[in-house]
Amino acid sequence: MGRMKIWKLACLGMILSCPGLRAQALSEGQPATSNVRGAEYPKISPDLRVTFQMKAPSAQKVEVMPGGGANGLGKGPFEMQRSADGTWSTTVGPVQPGFHYYWLLVDGVPVNDPSSETYFGWGRQSSGLEVPDPALDFYDAKDVPHGDVRIHWYRASTTGQMRRIYVYTPPGYDADSKRRYPVLYLQHGAGESERGWTAQGRANFILDNLITARKAQPMIIVMENGYASKPGASPAAGPFRGNEGFGEVVTKDLIPEIDRSYRTRPDRAHRAVAGLSMGGGQAMNIGSANLDKFASIGCFSGAVMRNFDIKTSFNGVFADPAAFNKRVSLLWIGCGAEDGLMAGSRALHEALQAAGVRHVWWEGPGLHDWQVWRKHLYEFAQVVFRE
Amino acid sequence: MGRMKIWKLACLGMILSCPGLRAQALSEGQPATSNVRGAEYPKISPDLRVTFQMKAPSAQKVEVMPGGGANGLGKGPFEMQRSADGTWSTTVGPVQPGFHYYWLLVDGVPVNDPSSETYFGWGRQSSGLEVPDPALDFYDAKDVPHGDVRIHWYRASTTGQMRRIYVYTPPGYDADSKRRYPVLYLQHGAGESERGWTAQGRANFILDNLITARKAQPMIIVMENGYASKPGASPAAGPFRGNEGFGEVVTKDLIPEIDRSYRTRPDRAHRAVAGLSMGGGQAMNIGSANLDKFASIGCFSGAVMRNFDIKTSFNGVFADPAAFNKRVSLLWIGCGAEDGLMAGSRALHEALQAAGVRHVWWEGPGLHDWQVWRKHLYEFAQVVFRE
Repeated sequence: MGRMKIWKLACLGMILSCPGLRAQALSEGQPATSNVRGAEYPKISPDLRVTFQMKAPSAQKVEVMPGGGANGLGKGPFEMQRSADGTWSTTVGPVQPGFHYYWLLVDGVPVNDPSSETYFGWGRQSSGLEVPDPALDFYDAKDVPHGDVRIHWYRASTTGQMRRIYVYTPPGYDADSKRRYPVLYLQHGAGESERGWTAQGRANFILDNLITARKAQPMIIVMENGYASKPGASPAAGPFRGNEGFGEVVTKDLIPEIDRSYRTRPDRAHRAVAGLSMGGGQAMNIGSANLDKFASIGCFSGAVMRNFDIKTSFNGVFADPAAFNKRVSLLWIGCGAEDGLMAGSRALHEALQAAGVRHVWWEGPGLHDWQVWRKHLYEFAQVVFRE
Repeated sequence: MGRMKIWKLACLGMILSCPGLRAQALSEGQPATSNVRGAEYPKISPDLRVTFQMKAPSAQKVEVMPGGGANGLGKGPFEMQRSADGTWSTTVGPVQPGFHYYWLLVDGVPVNDPSSETYFGWGRQSSGLEVPDPALDFYDAKDVPHGDVRIHWYRASTTGQMRRIYVYTPPGYDADSKRRYPVLYLQHGAGESERGWTAQGRANFILDNLITARKAQPMIIVMENGYASKPGASPAAGPFRGNEGFGEVVTKDLIPEIDRSYRTRPDRAHRAVAGLSMGGGQAMNIGSANLDKFASIGCFSGAVMRNFDIKTSFNGVFADPAAFNKRVSLLWIGCGAEDGLMAGSRALHEALQAAGVRHVWWEGPGLHDWQVWRKHLYEFAQVVFRE
């Protein structure tokens, strides 16, 4: 770590003080791991500047837009410069490590970067950029045993339709056909899908690494799509609506399906529900309303109400702190310091603390983004299902 | 079937003869199943006309382009018309049933349709349109037991890098921990990836339906990425190059990894290799060069040489037809009649037939597209691994 930091600072100093070296460092950048095969750009330099490039000879203007207008890439749009052959490019940053949604504006129209893999976010397939963190490798795909991520289909009576789930089975799951595992139900955020926690969040690699290091219990992770409309419900308007049936899907359809299909430990002590943002709110709602099914709850940068009331909120489940503490093994709440949802999370934490409701509180640097949620899962997975 | 056909013809007749009814039928169209959640367009009418729509107030011109310029959607580009609020739309067709790649041209720049899921093809994430076939349902997700599709990671010594595979395990795989299965290695086409056979091809649903109907042996299907460069090889130029190491990956890395990780029947009689287009060529090459490992080969619309020579091609494996016939359980060759690769496939078929090399020959209507490859897999899966 120390060596890396010194190298980074020295390198940054040289680059900033010498235009020639800066150009060289940029040209020595690496294609992002989030690119499609063979795509040279976006390219990331050692000082975490990012160069975007797109061929668009017939366009009048091309810009780079961070997801939502501003994120770890900075505040956009960033105008790209046209070269003689119609290739547009720009260099931004240094940017923050982690995963960042982005898109390009071609003559003002938001479109994906053809050089990037796509990641379901903002209600559609979006471009995404993985910026390596010189200080962290807990979510990297290392040379350790890897669990499978299974795409699983089932028919849910609540919605009357087929649903697709992503299910992580830990390393060794297939080798020992007798062993049973605890299950974490893990939800994505608004505008995302059941693919988010593995593609953007790297949940599988985080668990592979933790399990290999014996820092987490081997567990199954179930990732559903948090959107679920009941039959006959008025059609959801827009990609961010239509999750009123999700709680019922989880309790009536999903849990039975998982306990039927995988070698679970099908009791509340070995079942947890967690999620990020909208999924954090869902975890709080579904978990607290079904303590007969879940003994552990995780709320990551959760969309929770600011006007939390210890007596009445969540159907009064916190009104008797002693009873709650006896019943619940783990309540975990975390949020990034620079996240707009921090106020709600902190209010929840402080009210619970004042009332004596036992919980883990995580407060650290970070925005409302996947780098924080990776850290949340990394911490949460180490304390959940402790015997 | 009969009723559906009559209904379709009657409906088509009414629509074509009456502008009012035609407009009504279009407005009663259904969002394509290949759309993202909540997206109303592209919308498909009962007569298989497709309406595309995109909001792009700042664009000067927006067009729809079928993948490659022309496919089952017709020959593009199709110009879209702008409405007062900056929404562009156009209706094309009737189009051909099946899966079709497409993109939009925004001021001449090819971009994805934000309303569509993305499908890896043409070396990048592309938009795709699923057009239902009133006459076929063998690839639909029906109310039958479903196998899982597992995303599996492993390190390949040939490339020195981590690779990702999609592995279909048939219904019942987890319920009976003793049963072992034959394995089909199934490859995608140029510019596609390990995701193609399930996302575009629906291989898993095809097998779920066949296995439920007892028309195919339950089998494992392994879908790798056909691109593999050896360490130190000069970097592949462009997304369609760089598969010179793939044969070695299959024999040295992939087969051992699969036999170690899944309950296979690890002998040549229970191992097949097949693929489409570029993957068909790979199946012919890898299969014929490794008859100690594969007893069955499938070449779907394969990229095979026109100047096939029975004595020398494929290292002379067909030079002794009697020996080949004795050794190989199934050689399956097929191509669509309107496919540009038909000449090569037919030349191969005729030369093999003249020499007395036993094989199955499939010739039917169809372009170089996924609807044909779905049919190929459907037929191939019913005859491979017959005891």
